[in-house]
Amino acid sequence: MNFSVQVKVMPLKELLDPQGKAVLGGLQNLGIKTVQDVRIGKTIQLQVEAGSPDEAKKIAEDASKKLLANPVMEYFEITVL
Amino acid sequence: MNFSVQVKVMPLKELLDPQGKAVLGGLQNLGIKTVQDVRIGKTIQLQVEAGSPDEAKKIAEDASKKLLANPVMEYFEITVL
Repeated sequence: MNFSVQVKVMPLKELLDPQGKAVLGGLQNLGIKTVQDVRIGKTIQLQVEAGSPDEAKKIAEDASKKLLANPVMEYFEITVL
Repeated sequence: MNFSVQVKVMPLKELLDPQGKAVLGGLQNLGIKTVQDVRIGKTIQLQVEAGSPDEAKKIAEDASKKLLANPVMEYFEITVL
């Protein structure tokens, strides 16, 4: 079966996110002042061939650890859709 | 009240995603051959000051249209967490 798996990769909460800070500045310049913080990460959608949702999740976890996320700077969350 | 709003920005389904194709190639080189397609987008987490979840969503929508997403190449989905 084919599963759609979503991997969300975000910068660790302890780290500064300069890209997010730049976007926050941009929003304020545009007059959107009710946004108080911005953090930017990646969303990676995988189409995985697997026997079960659990297996699909394991494959995505393996892929995240080996390639998609850098554990020094990022954490990831996996959702099977 | 402070709301955490998540904006997912993905390349339009009709468009080729070269970054995703590169990651797919990388996964196959690593021996992960059960992944059949990869698409890569952005996750943007906003902290929004608003009176209600609906208002927070509207602010995020406004921000997405004005700055976060490029409608020529991307679509966005908003979730109030």
